[in-house]
Amino acid sequence: MEWMGLSLIGAGRGEPGGPTFTGWNPAEGVALEPRYHGAHPHEVERACQLAQDAAPGFGALSSRQRASFLEHVAEALLAAEAGFLAVTPRETGLPPARIQGELGRAAGQFRQFARLLEEGSWVDARIDHALPERRPLPRPDLRSMLRPVGPVAVFGASNFPLAFSVAGGDTASALAAGCPVVAKAHPAHPATSELAGLAVRAAVVACGLPEGVFSLLFDAGIEVGRALVRHPAIRAVGFTGSRAGGRALMELAAARPVPIPVFAEMGSINPIFLLPEALAARPEALADALAASIVQGTGQFCTSPGLLVAVEGPGYDAFRARLSERLGAVSAAPMLTPAIAERFREGVGRLAARPDARTCVRGESRNALGAPALFEVDTGAVLADAALTDEVFGSCAVLTRAREPKDLVRVAASLEGQLTATLLLEPGDHALAAELLPMLADRVGRVLVNGVPTGVEVCPAMVHGGPFPASSDGRFTAVGTGAIRRFVRPVCFQDLPEPLLPTELRESNPLNLWRTVDGVLTRG
Amino acid sequence: MEWMGLSLIGAGRGEPGGPTFTGWNPAEGVALEPRYHGAHPHEVERACQLAQDAAPGFGALSSRQRASFLEHVAEALLAAEAGFLAVTPRETGLPPARIQGELGRAAGQFRQFARLLEEGSWVDARIDHALPERRPLPRPDLRSMLRPVGPVAVFGASNFPLAFSVAGGDTASALAAGCPVVAKAHPAHPATSELAGLAVRAAVVACGLPEGVFSLLFDAGIEVGRALVRHPAIRAVGFTGSRAGGRALMELAAARPVPIPVFAEMGSINPIFLLPEALAARPEALADALAASIVQGTGQFCTSPGLLVAVEGPGYDAFRARLSERLGAVSAAPMLTPAIAERFREGVGRLAARPDARTCVRGESRNALGAPALFEVDTGAVLADAALTDEVFGSCAVLTRAREPKDLVRVAASLEGQLTATLLLEPGDHALAAELLPMLADRVGRVLVNGVPTGVEVCPAMVHGGPFPASSDGRFTAVGTGAIRRFVRPVCFQDLPEPLLPTELRESNPLNLWRTVDGVLTRG
Repeated sequence: MEWMGLSLIGAGRGEPGGPTFTGWNPAEGVALEPRYHGAHPHEVERACQLAQDAAPGFGALSSRQRASFLEHVAEALLAAEAGFLAVTPRETGLPPARIQGELGRAAGQFRQFARLLEEGSWVDARIDHALPERRPLPRPDLRSMLRPVGPVAVFGASNFPLAFSVAGGDTASALAAGCPVVAKAHPAHPATSELAGLAVRAAVVACGLPEGVFSLLFDAGIEVGRALVRHPAIRAVGFTGSRAGGRALMELAAARPVPIPVFAEMGSINPIFLLPEALAARPEALADALAASIVQGTGQFCTSPGLLVAVEGPGYDAFRARLSERLGAVSAAPMLTPAIAERFREGVGRLAARPDARTCVRGESRNALGAPALFEVDTGAVLADAALTDEVFGSCAVLTRAREPKDLVRVAASLEGQLTATLLLEPGDHALAAELLPMLADRVGRVLVNGVPTGVEVCPAMVHGGPFPASSDGRFTAVGTGAIRRFVRPVCFQDLPEPLLPTELRESNPLNLWRTVDGVLTRG
Repeated sequence: MEWMGLSLIGAGRGEPGGPTFTGWNPAEGVALEPRYHGAHPHEVERACQLAQDAAPGFGALSSRQRASFLEHVAEALLAAEAGFLAVTPRETGLPPARIQGELGRAAGQFRQFARLLEEGSWVDARIDHALPERRPLPRPDLRSMLRPVGPVAVFGASNFPLAFSVAGGDTASALAAGCPVVAKAHPAHPATSELAGLAVRAAVVACGLPEGVFSLLFDAGIEVGRALVRHPAIRAVGFTGSRAGGRALMELAAARPVPIPVFAEMGSINPIFLLPEALAARPEALADALAASIVQGTGQFCTSPGLLVAVEGPGYDAFRARLSERLGAVSAAPMLTPAIAERFREGVGRLAARPDARTCVRGESRNALGAPALFEVDTGAVLADAALTDEVFGSCAVLTRAREPKDLVRVAASLEGQLTATLLLEPGDHALAAELLPMLADRVGRVLVNGVPTGVEVCPAMVHGGPFPASSDGRFTAVGTGAIRRFVRPVCFQDLPEPLLPTELRESNPLNLWRTVDGVLTRG
C-alpha cells in the first residue's frame, strides 16, 4: 500500500497543485509523510456531479443489493487492518488496541446495516387499499415507503478516525439508505482517511456500482467543506465535531437556495448525578468507575463525563478524595492534535482561574499532551454561570457539591441539551430518580442508570444525539440502525398499476416485509 | 355562542387594547363583526410559559389517555357545527357543504390519531437486551421510544379554515404526540378560529388537563407569529402558507440561540403529465377531470394542478379545446381574501403578458373574485424560464405543448420540489411512465396515476409534503398519521430498573405493543 496524498474523485484521483498539509504525530511531535493535496474547486464540483449522476441507480438498487455492497465495504475495511495499524496510531496518538477495536466497530456498523437491509422492513411500507364504495368519496389506493434523499456530504470526525470518519457511521447509514457519499477527510488523520476511502471504493468497484457512489476529498482548510455543503447536488450533511463547526455548517445549509438538513453531533458534558444512597453505599467504587470513564481515550469521547453532581453528606468526601486520587495518578497522554491539546489547556486554565472553582486535580499538560483535571464548585455557581457547564474536550470534570437532593433537580432543570445523563443510584434513591428522569429525558438522548456514558453501543435501541446543542436535530440518532432515518424521506404512490409499483409495495409482498396495511402491521 | 374577539390564553382570555382587525366577507365585500384584538406581548409570553409548564404532565400521559382527549376534541368540534356554518362560509367565501365536509375531516383527523394512540405501537419501542457475557465488553440493556419534543406553535392556514387551521392537522398531530400547542389564528377567519379554539379548550377542561395544553393567539400583523417562533419554550413550528412566509419562519427558527424545526407546507404547481396513449384515447375525459380539479375550491388547494404537460399529436388539440371550454364556462368565484384574489390577478396578468405564453382562457377577475385562466407554452419556454412554473395560487394552469415524449422527461428533470405529480396513462404508456416515475419520486411527495391531485386522503400511507420548496422538510408529511413523527424524538434508557421504565418499555409489554426486540419486530 502506497499513500498518494490525493483525493478520490469517483474512480479517479485528484490532482496536486493546491494548498497542502500533512498528518502529525502528536506523541512525537513530528509531521508525517506523505503530503496531502487539497481538492481543487473543480474536483469538488466533479465529485458532487458524479454523486448526483449515481444517485438514481444506486437508490434504485434493492435493499438486498445494497446489503451486499455494505458487506463488501466491511470486508475491505477489515482487509486493510495492517495498513490502519501502521498509520492510524501514528496520526492520532491512539493505541493500536483501540484502533483494532474501532476497526471492528466500523466494519460491524456496515454489517449491521446490511442485516437491516436484508430484512428489509426498515422502508416503513404502508398500504391503504382503495375503498371504491366509500361515500361521499371513494378512497384511492395509497402506498408509501422510505426512499433515499440523494447525495450526502460526510465530514470525518477527529476523535473516531475509523468508526466516525470516512468509513464511519454517517457514511454507513447514508450508503445504507441509498445515498451516494462525498466524504471530507478530517485533516488530523489523512492517511487513515485515504485507506478507508480506498476500502469503500474497492467495494464500489467489486459490486459494479457507479463510481459516483463514493468520493473522498482532502482539504487543508475549510473551503472544500463549505463548497460541499453549498453544492446543489448535496441533500444532507453528516458532521461530528465542535459546536462552532456544527453551527457554521447549519447556518450555511439553512441559507442555501434549497436548504438541507445538517446532522451535526456536537458533544456534551454528559452530567452524572450521584444520588444520596448510592454515594453513601459505594463512594470508592463510583469514583473508580467515573475516573476510568473520564480518562478513557484521554477524555476525547463525545460522551465523556464533564459534570458530576453529588449531595454533600455520607460518602461525599470519600468520593471526592478517591476520584482526585485516581485522576491524579494518570499522567499526561497525547491528545489527537496539538490544537485539541491547546484548547484543553485553555479550558482547564479558565476553570482553574475561577474564584468559585476549587482545583482538586490539575496535572501538567504541555505540547500535545493532556493530563486529567478535576474542579469542585457549589450548586449556586453552576446555576449562576452556564460557562461552568461548557464542555472542555478532554479529561476534565467539574464536581458540583450540592447541599440537598433538591439541588440535583435544580441542576437538571438548568441543563441545555446533552447526549447523555447518568443516574447513579440504589433502590432507596428511586423516588428522587423518578423526579429526575422525565426532566432528563426532555434534555438528553440517552439516560443511564448505574453505568458510565462512554461506550456507545451500536444497536437498534441506541440514541446518540440529543436536543441542541448536543446535536443539531435531537429527533435523530447518529449511532445504531435508527441513523438511517436521517437520509430517507417517504414517498406516496397513488393508484399505481402493479407493474409500476416498487417491489416493496406490491400486493403480494414478495420481500416478506412487515408492512402497515390498512393501519395494521402485518407480514401478509 | 357569542364571539368575543379575544385570544385564548390557557383558561383565560386576552385583553383588548392592542391593534385590532376584523374578518371580511369576500363574497359581499364587507367587514364582519366582531372586532378582533391582537395578543399583547405579555400574553404571548404567558401562553408560551403555560405551554412549557403543561408539557411534562401532558407528555407523561399514556397514549390512551391522550387518545381520550383527542376524542373529546373531535366531539367538541362536531358539536359546534351550527356555529361554524354560521360564520365560516361568511368569512371564507366557501360554501356550507364544503365547511360541513371539512369539519368532518377535522374531527376525523383527531379520531384517527386517537386510534393510533390507542393501538400504541407508534412510539417505535425498541429493546436490546443486555448481553452480560459478551466479549470483549458486555452489552447493557438499552430501550428507546419516541417522546414529545415540547410546545409547538401552529399557524392556521387560510385555505383550510377547519382542517388545516386552529384545530387542524398540525394541532391534532402535535397534541397526539404529547406536545402543548400555541396556535396563531389566520386573520382571514378569526371567528372560525375562535370557535375552533374554544372547542379544543373545552376538551382540555373536560379531561382535566393543565390549561397550558392549548392557547390561541390573534394578531393583526406578523409580530405575534414572530414572537412565538422566537420564544424559547417553543420547540417546533407547523405552518401552511406561502413560500415567502414559510421561508421567513425557517430563517427565524434557524437563527434562534437554540434552533428549532419548522414544518412549512408551502404549496406547489403539481405537474400533470399526459402520456401519449392516454391523450389519444380519452382527451375529453382527461380535460373534464382536470378542469374540475383546477377549479375545485376556486383553485385554492395546495394540490391544485398548475402545470400540464402533453405531447402534441393525437388528442392534443381536442384536449386543449375541451379544457379551454370547460374552464371558460366557469364564472368568477369569491377567493378567500381580497389579498389572495389580488395576487391571483397579478399572477395571471404576468402570464398573459409573456410573449412566449398563449392565452387560452382568461375570465374576468375583479375585487375578491377569481376566474379560471389557462395558458399554453412550448417545452422550450418552460425549460428556459423557471418563472413559468411558479405557483399562481388559484384556478390557473399552464399547458406545456411538448414536441416528443422525451420532452416530458426533460420537464420532469427541471422540476423543483413538488407536493404531487400525476401521470395520466394507458397500459401502452408504461415504458415512458417507468422512465418518469423515479425522477418524479425524487422530486415530489406523492405520485398519482390516472387521478387528480386535489383531494388529500387522511390515512397512514399519505405523504403530504415534498422536497423544498414544496415543504421546508421533505422528510415529513403534514397529513395522515405519519404527521405525528414531526413532533417526537427518540430517547434511550440504559439499564433502567423495571419500576423506573416507561410502561411502553417494560419487559412484560403490558400495553401489547409491536416492539423491535433484539432487532426483531414482535408483540411478545
